[in-house]
Amino acid sequence: MYVSLRDVAARSGVSFQTASKVLNGRHVVVAASTRERILTAAGELGYIPNAMARGLVSRTSVTVGVLADDLSDLAVSQFVLAAQRAAAGHGHTALISSVHARADAVLALRKLLEHRVDGILVAAPSVEDDPKIGEALRRSPLPAVSINRIHGGGVPLVGSDHAVTGTLAAEHLLGLGHRLIGTVTGPRDRQVVQSRMRGFRSALREAGESLPARRVVEADWTHAGGYEAMHRLLDAAPEITAVFVHNDTMAVGARRALAERGRRVPDDCSLIGCDDLSFAAFLVPELTTVRVPFQETGEWAAKLLLDRLRGGQIPGRNLLPVELIVRASTSPLPHR
Amino acid sequence: MYVSLRDVAARSGVSFQTASKVLNGRHVVVAASTRERILTAAGELGYIPNAMARGLVSRTSVTVGVLADDLSDLAVSQFVLAAQRAAAGHGHTALISSVHARADAVLALRKLLEHRVDGILVAAPSVEDDPKIGEALRRSPLPAVSINRIHGGGVPLVGSDHAVTGTLAAEHLLGLGHRLIGTVTGPRDRQVVQSRMRGFRSALREAGESLPARRVVEADWTHAGGYEAMHRLLDAAPEITAVFVHNDTMAVGARRALAERGRRVPDDCSLIGCDDLSFAAFLVPELTTVRVPFQETGEWAAKLLLDRLRGGQIPGRNLLPVELIVRASTSPLPHR
Repeated sequence: MYVSLRDVAARSGVSFQTASKVLNGRHVVVAASTRERILTAAGELGYIPNAMARGLVSRTSVTVGVLADDLSDLAVSQFVLAAQRAAAGHGHTALISSVHARADAVLALRKLLEHRVDGILVAAPSVEDDPKIGEALRRSPLPAVSINRIHGGGVPLVGSDHAVTGTLAAEHLLGLGHRLIGTVTGPRDRQVVQSRMRGFRSALREAGESLPARRVVEADWTHAGGYEAMHRLLDAAPEITAVFVHNDTMAVGARRALAERGRRVPDDCSLIGCDDLSFAAFLVPELTTVRVPFQETGEWAAKLLLDRLRGGQIPGRNLLPVELIVRASTSPLPHR
Repeated sequence: MYVSLRDVAARSGVSFQTASKVLNGRHVVVAASTRERILTAAGELGYIPNAMARGLVSRTSVTVGVLADDLSDLAVSQFVLAAQRAAAGHGHTALISSVHARADAVLALRKLLEHRVDGILVAAPSVEDDPKIGEALRRSPLPAVSINRIHGGGVPLVGSDHAVTGTLAAEHLLGLGHRLIGTVTGPRDRQVVQSRMRGFRSALREAGESLPARRVVEADWTHAGGYEAMHRLLDAAPEITAVFVHNDTMAVGARRALAERGRRVPDDCSLIGCDDLSFAAFLVPELTTVRVPFQETGEWAAKLLLDRLRGGQIPGRNLLPVELIVRASTSPLPHR
């Protein structure tokens, strides 16, 4: 277990207060020999200062607490990684606490606070509608920045305009001549899914096209979910010539389902994903997708939080652009 | 910023010591009304107990500190996730500190210690040969368990026998009649790569086959690295009829390179990966691979660390079995 300040004080023959002042880096007048004795004892015993005892003012580095969703989700892990790198680039550190279920979020936040981080980054879309975590963040003594909506507001947001994502996907497919378009969505209770559908539907409507309910199938962001959803979509709407899948991970499963049904991509069915994860450019065929800037979002969120920790004002809503990446999985509507 | 114990003591009109004893849950004789006054003041001020002030003995839950490599590596993130879930399943928490470069590892460990975690899980293969982190872990006051070798030893290991991985891959390809086999390896300075090559070479040797140097190409675990390495391998050894790629992520890139060279998988070249990540079963064709049990490793590592924290003895070396998963990307040697 940890060596305490009392152990160091006892070993060096000084008071607890003197040892504390010297080792916690506060301005203190103490004889050079005493200081030396305390530092020697601390080194010999393996004393580790604790983050809590040292005020923010006296520290050159801060610790960012990251409240993160499931890290096996590549989108979340890319964001967290970028935020960590940005913090490290400024000499700071990030500690991550992961949320596995909605009920855990408040507990995960509490753990970060108990372990005395200096600010909070939220990357937990699964709890965007949870009033408990919204309330806990507003009651927390620390500044926070989030990449997902926080229930009740009050936490600055960094993200992308996901309605534009849906619009770009629809306009790309319409521009290639497709009219019979289907979509595999993420969970419909998520804000990001609702925004994408709003942009997608509105672009189709402007082009005079409808989107019958049978051409919209919901899935769960996973490979297996995308695979099953694509089979369901082909059962319900075999007429489709193109499909927009709400993330690249599900698009991998959807592409497999298309292959099993004997539909070549893009010759028999165009396929567009969303995210532009690192594998997208290496699939066969290369996946057309809408790039969501996870890395830039993570970097910007970390930067804004550090600005806030230094007492700066930051905007409440910070949106980064998404971008259509055209590759080989979409092609003009075939003439049959 | 955080409300201090002193603030709570002042508000409730008791000494710092009394407030500390009541709020840190130590056994203390104090009037019920005083206790109530302190708890009320703490609630009103939003006091958050700090993990450091409460000894392990008095706590029902512990915090596991995870020292992790790059979380965008699916193998690492799967392990970390499993360890977190296992800890959460026992009512405990994990805080993750991420390592971006070898120089950071000691700093990342120090941050976990400064923030007063109770034990350390190491998931950082990139620092396996770093004597500094080995020394820091041995000097640390906390029990540790690692999924990668630690320089200098002394930290219990949970992992797989990667020589068997290489043997299984070679035996599968040999069993299908392949003799002209190439391999795309991970970085050669990694223990896991050396073990895989040892098992792979030894199985080929037993079958009377050689592995010329031109049929071994090194890459960096990434999609892009696997893609470039496969192109290099086909330039240097166009005779190959099968290839073993050291992880599934590189296998995605290798499969694309094979397609660009007009080689069908598996008809013109069999492809076997390693890891069995979640996408492997959804690629076209489905990827044959050797399954590495990341999830079970994470769960077991967390369980062993919790055993140690409760004072138990645990074995120094804990190996979990790997398993050949035959899918559609390998097939018998074609008769030409």
